[in-house]
Amino acid sequence: MSKHEPNTPEHWMQQALELAAQGKGYVAPNPMVGCVIVSEEGKLVGEGYHKKFGEAHAEVNAVQSIANKADLENATVYVSLEPCSHQGKTPPCAPMLAKLPIKKVVIAMKDPNPSVDGKGILHLRNNGVEVETGLLKEEAEKLNEFFIHHQTFGRPFITLKVAQTADGYLAAADGESQWITGKQSRKLVHKWRSEYDAVLVGRTTTMVDNPSLTVRHVSGRQPRRIVIDGPYELPKELNLFSDKFEEKTSIITWNKEASATDADPMLKMMQQNYFRGEILQVSKLDGHADLRQAFKLLGEKGITSVLVEGGQQLSSALIRQGLVDKLELFIAPKLLGAGTRSLINIGINKMKEIAELKEVSWTKVGDDMLLTGYF
Amino acid sequence: MSKHEPNTPEHWMQQALELAAQGKGYVAPNPMVGCVIVSEEGKLVGEGYHKKFGEAHAEVNAVQSIANKADLENATVYVSLEPCSHQGKTPPCAPMLAKLPIKKVVIAMKDPNPSVDGKGILHLRNNGVEVETGLLKEEAEKLNEFFIHHQTFGRPFITLKVAQTADGYLAAADGESQWITGKQSRKLVHKWRSEYDAVLVGRTTTMVDNPSLTVRHVSGRQPRRIVIDGPYELPKELNLFSDKFEEKTSIITWNKEASATDADPMLKMMQQNYFRGEILQVSKLDGHADLRQAFKLLGEKGITSVLVEGGQQLSSALIRQGLVDKLELFIAPKLLGAGTRSLINIGINKMKEIAELKEVSWTKVGDDMLLTGYF
Repeated sequence: MSKHEPNTPEHWMQQALELAAQGKGYVAPNPMVGCVIVSEEGKLVGEGYHKKFGEAHAEVNAVQSIANKADLENATVYVSLEPCSHQGKTPPCAPMLAKLPIKKVVIAMKDPNPSVDGKGILHLRNNGVEVETGLLKEEAEKLNEFFIHHQTFGRPFITLKVAQTADGYLAAADGESQWITGKQSRKLVHKWRSEYDAVLVGRTTTMVDNPSLTVRHVSGRQPRRIVIDGPYELPKELNLFSDKFEEKTSIITWNKEASATDADPMLKMMQQNYFRGEILQVSKLDGHADLRQAFKLLGEKGITSVLVEGGQQLSSALIRQGLVDKLELFIAPKLLGAGTRSLINIGINKMKEIAELKEVSWTKVGDDMLLTGYF
Repeated sequence: MSKHEPNTPEHWMQQALELAAQGKGYVAPNPMVGCVIVSEEGKLVGEGYHKKFGEAHAEVNAVQSIANKADLENATVYVSLEPCSHQGKTPPCAPMLAKLPIKKVVIAMKDPNPSVDGKGILHLRNNGVEVETGLLKEEAEKLNEFFIHHQTFGRPFITLKVAQTADGYLAAADGESQWITGKQSRKLVHKWRSEYDAVLVGRTTTMVDNPSLTVRHVSGRQPRRIVIDGPYELPKELNLFSDKFEEKTSIITWNKEASATDADPMLKMMQQNYFRGEILQVSKLDGHADLRQAFKLLGEKGITSVLVEGGQQLSSALIRQGLVDKLELFIAPKLLGAGTRSLINIGINKMKEIAELKEVSWTKVGDDMLLTGYF
């Protein structure tokens, strides 16, 4: 439901943003885009969104949805992101719009993609279409935070998910870590899995928990699964390497020697029962896989967002190295007083260095509390 | 504001409870009690509450507030706790009410005090007054949880307050612990101080922080201050032993030899500049002061509630020994990853032994989150 007055520009743009959000999980590395077309009389005449990577853009879908093409005369197009100007998998949208008898295009945010970045707007203006930008810009940027981050830094947006007791423990002294948080929290994590391009776990978690990292309890697509296995020693019988999503698994390793055969597509296929996933070789840094380099590599492969379901070591290392963009911390109303701590040694030794999260929000999820914040 | 329909018994009883709550912090070891008198015509004609220990009870104040005594004819009296039947600091209320021309007394909860416990109700009934009990009983019990606990177990209700980072640290590695939580959280703690009979701290906190434990930022009365100083070695120059509330300080120690002079009122006064507070000598248990015995002693002295502003050792010891009734855990949206843990070794080693808090509530306090739960 729109929080804005009906028939205002804000109202139409929010509708475009809501349409855009329907593409969540399916459009990366493209951005989510929604488009609404309002006739000269102020009537909604067309709407569309980018549904899936490689398929038609929002503007095209919106134009095609119009029943009576005469409604385009002097119409206003509301689009959540600057229309593209370059030929990609589909023809560019700005020239398409410029050919229509529309009056105005209202854009929430410019496209940070260097191949667009103002060129779409310029093309429209040069062809006599009035352009307004910046309407609900913040909301549009929030919606596409993964895309913008990927475009800007060339690496995926990293969210760290941690589930702990109120006193900050991940697992009991006996090693048991299941069921700290409640059913609703776990369900929410499955929803996130379907929305991120990839989920990432470390070696210890993979070994101890043998996770599947599949999307269950909610419907949605299965993300890529990434495992850090520096020494390349994890047994290939584990779920991540042998179940039906095997091809969606990437292993990050510094051991180029041990992984050489599996990393070479030709050599790999000569093996019996070869691993169908992907091997990403990175440098060794302080005895571990170079995580920054790994993310750079993932970014190059079109991974715009990674949900880290971290154990203590991986979570702490990522924060220490400044590689976490957003924290999703589930806090259960339970106490352990001993066991594995959620975070250790994140590089802070003095109170004045304390890591204060930004844009903090607290959300009740079942009996648990979810703290969301940015670094 | 009442959440109940106007002019219903629930409405009147809630009003009595709200009146009762005004005595918070001033009536212990008595319970908070509120009383509302409604005429035969259904009009509020009198109200009162127990304002201060030793002063008039709620019923007396309510009866005295009535302008036209004729309104008592067939009136209904709503009282949040069973009227007392025994002569205490003031005359008993049940006989006083029984002599009035009232029709009915509605009581939220029975008085657990063994000197009352049904005798007040019996007296009213034996004198022809109709009595109803149990209306808003849960609310009434919640309001007087300190009093009920003290009456039932002979020891104070213990609330443990902890303020930590989201990852469960009390202090940074450099020892600094101030300003983890925000201003509003700290202000709320001052309000609590004015509502509890006593605040309690351990030896390390006293030594390191030299706290005053005074009520600031809010108006309210200063609680008794209790310090655990097992070996009786804390310097008497510290604030708790030398400021203007010196007489309100109690020291709990197992070192009977070292504390002998200060514990004896006569010997003490023979010293120069003697300590004007109180010394409570308890047994030594596993090398520490016997906390259970200490609370028993405090209970006998009329302390019905203690707010523990614990450091790591005291907080953990109290939970481990099952002595905490309620937890108030402030969680700041900040991370440290190192330093002093909020809780350690509370006696839980397996996930199935995890301490699940009961009647949990989460409250946003400024930027922080407050987790409240019962053990």
